[in-house]
Amino acid sequence: MQFLDIKEPGFDAKFAALVQRSEESGREVEEVVQGIINQVRSRGDEALVEFTRKFDRVECDAAGLEVTQAEFEQAFAAVDARDLAALRHAVQRVERFHEKQKQQSWLSTEESDIMLGQKVTPLARVGIYVPGGKASYPSSVIMNAVPAKVAGVKEIIMVAPAPGGETNPHVLVAAKLAGVDRVFKIGGAQAVAALAYGTQTIPRVDKITGPGNIYVATAKKLVFGQTGIDMIAGPSEILVINDGSGNPMHIAADLLSQAEHDELASAVLITTDRNFGQRVAIEVERQLHELPRQAIARKSWESFGVIIVSDTMEEAISFSNRIAPEHLELAVENPFEILPLITNAGAIFMGHYTPEAAGDYLAGPNHTLPTGGTARFFSPLSVDDFVKKSSILYFTKGGLERVGADIVRIAGLEGLDAHARSVSFRLDK
Amino acid sequence: MQFLDIKEPGFDAKFAALVQRSEESGREVEEVVQGIINQVRSRGDEALVEFTRKFDRVECDAAGLEVTQAEFEQAFAAVDARDLAALRHAVQRVERFHEKQKQQSWLSTEESDIMLGQKVTPLARVGIYVPGGKASYPSSVIMNAVPAKVAGVKEIIMVAPAPGGETNPHVLVAAKLAGVDRVFKIGGAQAVAALAYGTQTIPRVDKITGPGNIYVATAKKLVFGQTGIDMIAGPSEILVINDGSGNPMHIAADLLSQAEHDELASAVLITTDRNFGQRVAIEVERQLHELPRQAIARKSWESFGVIIVSDTMEEAISFSNRIAPEHLELAVENPFEILPLITNAGAIFMGHYTPEAAGDYLAGPNHTLPTGGTARFFSPLSVDDFVKKSSILYFTKGGLERVGADIVRIAGLEGLDAHARSVSFRLDK
Repeated sequence: MQFLDIKEPGFDAKFAALVQRSEESGREVEEVVQGIINQVRSRGDEALVEFTRKFDRVECDAAGLEVTQAEFEQAFAAVDARDLAALRHAVQRVERFHEKQKQQSWLSTEESDIMLGQKVTPLARVGIYVPGGKASYPSSVIMNAVPAKVAGVKEIIMVAPAPGGETNPHVLVAAKLAGVDRVFKIGGAQAVAALAYGTQTIPRVDKITGPGNIYVATAKKLVFGQTGIDMIAGPSEILVINDGSGNPMHIAADLLSQAEHDELASAVLITTDRNFGQRVAIEVERQLHELPRQAIARKSWESFGVIIVSDTMEEAISFSNRIAPEHLELAVENPFEILPLITNAGAIFMGHYTPEAAGDYLAGPNHTLPTGGTARFFSPLSVDDFVKKSSILYFTKGGLERVGADIVRIAGLEGLDAHARSVSFRLDK
Repeated sequence: MQFLDIKEPGFDAKFAALVQRSEESGREVEEVVQGIINQVRSRGDEALVEFTRKFDRVECDAAGLEVTQAEFEQAFAAVDARDLAALRHAVQRVERFHEKQKQQSWLSTEESDIMLGQKVTPLARVGIYVPGGKASYPSSVIMNAVPAKVAGVKEIIMVAPAPGGETNPHVLVAAKLAGVDRVFKIGGAQAVAALAYGTQTIPRVDKITGPGNIYVATAKKLVFGQTGIDMIAGPSEILVINDGSGNPMHIAADLLSQAEHDELASAVLITTDRNFGQRVAIEVERQLHELPRQAIARKSWESFGVIIVSDTMEEAISFSNRIAPEHLELAVENPFEILPLITNAGAIFMGHYTPEAAGDYLAGPNHTLPTGGTARFFSPLSVDDFVKKSSILYFTKGGLERVGADIVRIAGLEGLDAHARSVSFRLDK
C-alpha cells in the first residue's frame, strides 16, 4: 500500500503508474480464441463437445450438455431454506429497481402531417455467461438475468462450465428464480462461439453478457458485431472519498471487500483527514489477518492499495472524476451535497451505511459496472442493454410537400440525385 | 438483380449468399492501423502532422490543423442562402426529435430507509469523425453533432480530413449550425488515435462517433475500451415491403436512392404482387439511365439488388425480421397494422409518402442506423449514446439493519467474508 499526498510533485503520474494493471489480451490469446471460434462456427456441436471434454473434463455428447429438470430439482433440494429466501429477496429487489429503467415506445403527434417516433423492442434471445467451478456467483446470474427478463427478452440462455461435471446448486437455483429459460454446461471461448453463431444444440443469441476469464472476454470481443456484448470488464476497483467523518474500521472493511475479489483489484481511499487515513491503514492491517481470503486481499492491497491525503474536498472530487471509479463511496457527512459534482462513476454509495457489498447483492442496482476508467463513457448493465430501438417515420403527402423542397436541396448538396428524385417523383402533380 | 420466389427450395441460403458482402477488415489493415495508432499515441502531434502530410498532402504544423474563425466565415459566405436555410431546417427538426430522447436522473423514495436511483450525466467531450474530400456530407455532421449537443456534451470536437487542404464549406457551416465547438483538419486512423489518446493539440475525447472508410472503422474498433465508439457500420441497405399498392416508379426510386450510395449497398423489394415486382424491375432499369451516379447504382443493383415474391404479408414480415434491415419501408396500404409485428429494423418508413431520403436528411430521427443484420441488437444513434449513467445507493442504518442479514447470507454463499464483514461491522451496535 502507498500513502500519498495529492500535493506531491508528479502525483497524477505516480498514481497512474501505481494502479496501472493488465492491458488487453495479447495477440497469442487472441489467436487461440479465434481458432476455437472458427472450429465451433464451422463444426458446431462436434467441436463444442470436443472442447468441453478437453477443457472441462466432462464426458458427454451434445444432448447431455443441457441441465435437466431433475438437476434443477436436486439443486433446489440441496439449498438451505434461508439461503433460498435471501436469493429470492435479491431477485425481488433487483427486479423492482430495473422495472424503473423500462422505456416505452412513443409516437409524436404534434405535427398533423408527419408523425415520428421510437419503437422499443426487447432482444429476442440473449445468452448469459456465468463462470463455473467452485467460485460460482449466484449474484452474477441474478444481475444479468433479471434485467433481461424485465426488458421482456423471450428466451434467456445461460451457459456455465461444469468442470468435472459439477454445477454449483446456488447458481442453478438463482437461474430459475431469475427467469433463465435454459442452462447449458459449457464455458470458455467455445461457449461464447456457440452462443454467437449457434450450433445444432445451442441456439444463436442476439447478445452475450456476463463476466469471464481472459479467454471469455477475448471471445466476446471477437464475436462483437456478429452479436451484441456488454462492456468488456477489467479488474474491479473501489474509491472511497472521506472527510474525516465515520469509522475507520468500516472503511477498512470496505477496502478489503474489494481487495478480496482478486489480486488485481484496486482499493483507494482519498481523505481530507490525514489522521483518519492513518487509522484506516492500521485497521486494514489488523483485519487482513482475520480474512479467509487473506492471501488474495493482501496481494491486492500491497500492489494496488493507495491512501491519499488531499487538502480539500474539491481536490478529492476532481481526482475522483479524473479516475472514473467503478465503485465510489462518498463516506462523508453530507453525501447528497457532493452527488451533483460527481461526473464519472459506475455506482455511487452514499454516506456511512451504504457499503459496496450492499450493491453487490441486493440493494437493487446492477453490480455489473464499468471498470478501469470507462465510467467516463460506459453505464451500469441495465434494461437498456436488453432492448433495441427502431425509429418510426410517417409522412402524409402533405407532410412531404411541406418539407420536401429542403430534402431535395440537401440531397443536391451531397450530389445524391436518386435521393432527390425519390422525393420529387412523389411531389409531381 | 435477382428475381426470387420465397417458395423456392433453399431460398434463405440463396438470399444470404446473394447479399453477403465484405466481412471484417483483414489482419493486414489491422496491423497498418495499429502501427499508426501506436505512433500517434507515443509521439503525439509530431506523428499526427507526419501522417497528415503523407495521406492528405497538407503541409502545415500542428497549430495549422484547427479550422479558424476566418475559415468559418469564408464557408458561410460561400454557401447559398437557400442551402443555408435547408441546413438550418434540418438541424431544427433533428434537434426537436432528439429532445424527446432525453432521460432524467431519478431517485426513488418509496422506501423510507433506502433510496436508490440513477444519475444521467452527459459525456464531457466527444469526437465526431466526418469523411472529407469532395464527397462530404453535411447531413452526417448534423446527425452526429445534434444528439451530442442535445445530450448536454460540453465540448464537441469534429475531425475531417482536408485532402490537398480543401474543406467542404457545407460541412463547416453544418458544424457551426449543429453546435460543434472545434474542427480539426485531420482524418484517417491518425485522427481516431489523436481523439482517443489526445495529443498536444487534439484533446482526448470520451467517445468517437461517425462514419469512415475501412481504416477509420478499424481504428475505432482498436481504440474501443480506451474510448467509447458508436456501432461499427457496414455497407448500407434497404428493404421495401409491398402489398401491390402504391407506385412502382416511387419504389424504384427508393431502391436506387440506396444503390447510388455505394457499390456494396443492397436494395431489396419483397412484394406479395408478382406483377408489381416486375414493374419495379422495369422502372429501375429505366431510371438508372437518368442517374448521374449510374455506374455506382448499377453495380450495386446488379450485385446486391433482389426482388422477391411472397405469397402472404406474414411471410414478408417474417423474412424482414430475419434479415433485420437498416432501412425498412412499409410501402403498403395500412402500414400501422404491420408496425407492431416488426421486431428488427433500424428505421421504419411508413406508407407511400415516406421515402428513405426523408429520414436521411431532415425528418428528425437519426440516419446513423445499424447495418448488416445488427438491428437485432443495435439501435439508431441517439442521445443515449452521449450520456452515461451512474447508479445511486443510499442506505440509512435502519435500511442496512432491515436487509443486512440477507446480504451477509449471500456473501457467505459466495465465500466472500470481507463483503459480509463490511455489513456486519456496521450492524454491531
